[in-house]
Formats: sequence, C-alpha cells, structure tokens
Amino acid sequence: MPLLVVGSIALDSVETPHGIVNDALGGSAVFFSYAASYFTPVRLVGVVGEDFPTAHREMLEDRKVDTSGLIVEKNGSTFRWRGKYAGDMSTAETLEVHLNVLGTFDPDLSPTFADSPFVFLANGSPAMQRKVLSQTKKRQLVVADTMNFWIETQRDELYALLKEVDGLFINDGEARMLTDEINLVRAGRKVLELGPKFVIIKKGEHGAMFLSAEESFVMPAFPLADVVDPTGAGDSFAGGFMGYLASVGKSDLASLKTAMACGTVIASFNVEDFSLRRFQRTERDEINRRLDSYRGMMSF
Amino acid sequence: MPLLVVGSIALDSVETPHGIVNDALGGSAVFFSYAASYFTPVRLVGVVGEDFPTAHREMLEDRKVDTSGLIVEKNGSTFRWRGKYAGDMSTAETLEVHLNVLGTFDPDLSPTFADSPFVFLANGSPAMQRKVLSQTKKRQLVVADTMNFWIETQRDELYALLKEVDGLFINDGEARMLTDEINLVRAGRKVLELGPKFVIIKKGEHGAMFLSAEESFVMPAFPLADVVDPTGAGDSFAGGFMGYLASVGKSDLASLKTAMACGTVIASFNVEDFSLRRFQRTERDEINRRLDSYRGMMSF
Repeated sequence: MPLLVVGSIALDSVETPHGIVNDALGGSAVFFSYAASYFTPVRLVGVVGEDFPTAHREMLEDRKVDTSGLIVEKNGSTFRWRGKYAGDMSTAETLEVHLNVLGTFDPDLSPTFADSPFVFLANGSPAMQRKVLSQTKKRQLVVADTMNFWIETQRDELYALLKEVDGLFINDGEARMLTDEINLVRAGRKVLELGPKFVIIKKGEHGAMFLSAEESFVMPAFPLADVVDPTGAGDSFAGGFMGYLASVGKSDLASLKTAMACGTVIASFNVEDFSLRRFQRTERDEINRRLDSYRGMMSF
Repeated sequence: MPLLVVGSIALDSVETPHGIVNDALGGSAVFFSYAASYFTPVRLVGVVGEDFPTAHREMLEDRKVDTSGLIVEKNGSTFRWRGKYAGDMSTAETLEVHLNVLGTFDPDLSPTFADSPFVFLANGSPAMQRKVLSQTKKRQLVVADTMNFWIETQRDELYALLKEVDGLFINDGEARMLTDEINLVRAGRKVLELGPKFVIIKKGEHGAMFLSAEESFVMPAFPLADVVDPTGAGDSFAGGFMGYLASVGKSDLASLKTAMACGTVIASFNVEDFSLRRFQRTERDEINRRLDSYRGMMSF
C-alpha cells in the first residue's frame, strides 16, 4: 500500500572519524523514503530551494519514490545542516543550521497523496504535523517522530498530536525528557498514556525498544564493525519499519515485530557510509540476507 | 556437569534510588553460584572472615551449592564493599572497599574440585586466576571475568591468562580500554586475537554482545520497569550462562546462544531487588516462563 512521508530534505555537511562530506543529500524524509522504497511505493512531500541538484531528485525517482509532492521554492535555498560526530559517534554536535525554505514549510497534500493509507510524519513542528494529518482522509496507520526542541517549545501542540497518532518514534533521551521517567519501560508507558497505541524508543547503537499495551521488547542494533556516519539512522529505521507495514497492509503485533527487524536491518546499511551512499549500492537481496542473519542471531 | 567458581564473597552496603541495604550478602562468586544453581551443581571457592553469618552459607547450601571450598579465616573480616547508584544506575560509585581476608586470598583446590570440567574464574587478580587454572586437571571449558583495575595494573598477567582461557566476560568500557578500539565489534575481535575463543562484552541495561571467529550477535537485556539494584547483574549473567553450558555439557554455537539467553534472563531477576532477595523467591518455573517470553520477544 502507498506510504506517505512528510519531512525535511537537506543538504548535509558531516564530519565523523571516518571522513567528511559537504552538501550531501540528507533530511528525514529522504532517508525515510529511500529506506521504505525497498518495501513499498513511497510518496514524498517536502520543500527544497532552487539550488537542489536535479540528480538527487532523479535518484529518488529511480527508486520509484513519487516526488510529485516536492516543492521547489523560487529563489529559495535548501535546508542545510552541518554536524560532527566524535568518539563513539553516539551523538551529533550541530555546528550550523540554516532552515532556509524549511522555515516556512506548509505542505498542502494533493488529492491522491491525501488518500494515502500509511502516513509518516517525520520530525517537524507538531503544529505542522497536525495540519498535514488533518488532510489525510483515508489514513489507516499514522506514525510520527519528534525531538527535544518540540518537547521544550511546543509541548501542548505535541500533546495534541499524540492524541491523534497511532505510533510515535522518539529517542531515549527525549522519552525521558517528555515523561520525567529515567527507566525506559516506564517512560514508554507514560508516552502511551498520552495517546499513541505504540511507541518506539530509539537507543542508537543499542537498538530500539517497542512498547504497546500488550507487549514490550527490545531489538538490538545489527552488530557492525564499520559505522561510518550515523546521520539518518533513525529515519532509515522508521522507513524500513513503515515500509514493511505498508507492504503487508496491516499492523498487528506479528507485523510490528517484523517491521522492527526490517527497520533495524535497513538502518544498519545506512550507517555504513555517508549520506545515501550505502543504500545506493544495496539491493533487496542483500537486505533479505541480512534479515535472515539477524533472525538467526536472535533465535535460541 | 559440575561447575567450579572461584571469586569474591562480600558483605555489600548499597544505596540506589530505591533504598539502602547494609552488609547484605554479595560478591561475584555468590551471585554467580546462586544464578548457576538453577541449572547445574555448583562448587564454590572463596574466603570469608569469622564475621560471615552462618545463615548466608546455609542459604547457598539450600541451593545445593557445594560450599566445602569456603575458607573461614580465623580473626579475619569478610570483604566489604559500599557503593551507590544514582540516575539511570548504569554505573556504581564505590564509596568504600575493605579487602580484609580477600587481600591474601590464595585458593587451593581440593582433588574433587580440581577435577571440575566447567570452570569460572570470577573477577580477581589475573595472577591468582592463573594459579587456580593451573590446578584444574580435567577442564573442558574455562571462562574468566576481569575488570579495569587489572587491565591498568597487571596487563601482562592478564595477557598470559587470556592465552589459557576459552572465554572472557568483560564490560564495554573495559573492552575499549583493553583494545584501544571504540567500536565494540572491533574491540571484541581484538580480544579474540589475545587468545579466547569467545568474548562476551557486557553492556549493562543494553544487554551483551557475543563474539567468536564464526559469529557475532547482541542479546538485549530483558526489559524491566523496576530495576532496584544492579549489583551482581554481570556475575548473575555469567552464572546463568555457565550454569546452562555445564547442564548440557557442551559449548557449541547453539548452546552458547541459549546460554546467553539464560544469562540474560537470570540477570533480569537479580536486579529486581537488593542482594539475592529476588533470587530467593524465584523458582525454576518462573525462569522458564521468562525465557519463553524472551524467546517470543525476539522471534519475527
């Protein structure tokens, strides 16, 4: 089934212990779309400036991502982020942010896109996320991502959003910030009280925890000897997760569990190189093999 | 098959956000023995002072732990540790250490104990660990634990030990310290180059990573809403791991994987209360149920 994603499209400049890239393709909606495209048709909504290279758009179209919702702002510049990872690369230090055209992003869905049954609201202001949500007429599953900035500055809007979504992606530090609970199981349960039917707490290199009223479990990250650039790992995870669910057209517990594994494995490819480079040389066969290997690792 | 453990026996005073205990039973060999006793007969070697309560020894004997290797030093005092956990309880702050009788611990194995096929050398000086090892005549599987203090002060002795053991337990920070590698897969591989056939890198609340020449995988910790006291979690993990292997009498990959799961689940009980309190109200049935639940969590 078609999967709609609304989020940022960026030109990232990233430094890690393994190298540097400048103005490389990035952004939550981009990582998400590419990751999800291995599983299901993706509809991308985002905004870029006139400086956005045509090659980037073509790369997404080559993956059958529908880019008809990509707005190009005349005389505008694409959102830019510059960051640095050091040591164990568990957190990025943001060196520069230029919102540019993202600062006034106010998406209007086409009638086709508004009918998408699976919807992912990538990290963005909760007010904007709610506005998009109100346009989706045939939604079957809506999942959102958020971050510390919105918890700090738009908590009420975020609470309103949480009442309207089925699932939430949030990282461990943000889950603790949102709920004032240090223990992640407790933090997750408090998130559920705010509205979502499930919450996925991202723990970086330590994997992710899933919680719903019925179930709680952790899936570890796929062990890797070469983590080159963690940028986009969380969005790739969400892309694999939502892409799988859209591909099977349901979200029962068994599907959610397989979706967690798909997200984990997809994210493991993403971090093995800068930007989308590793994805660009990854076919579905290789993903399936790593999924099998991951399944084997956890069977006893 | 019988499982020998040589290690510390302690009276712990511990403060966590959930409470305080004073002079409670603890020590690596104690947590290990109790945990392993759910799976196999355990032979305990350690030293205590005259102040060691008879009730503690009886508690272990009630679990069929063979305490004939427990030395009581006349006029001596039992090893004491006082520590505090705050925040997410990921690390203990040591407030006091009194080695007492442990300072001159120089174990001499009885002929029966020296014939034990499964051997665990709990954290202790590598020189002492090697001396014990040299007494074991029919060893089938030897696994050791170590810590930062020995890496810093007895690195050469530790290297010599690593050439003689089959497996090593070590925590993530210590694996990084020992190998100068930040990435845990790389750190683990470097440990393997030092001798052991497998290494288990303990990651606290994030579970544990297993590495051998053929395989690497991570098992997440069992998700818990109530972590009361992490003291002894690593030793309980090792006890469940070694206890299971001794119970099946082998250490092929499938057995090692199940052993990792047993270690994970046993440790999850240990941290739910202070000292050995949770173990004391845990029967094998409950362990089996949690093992089934853990298996289900990771199946997709």
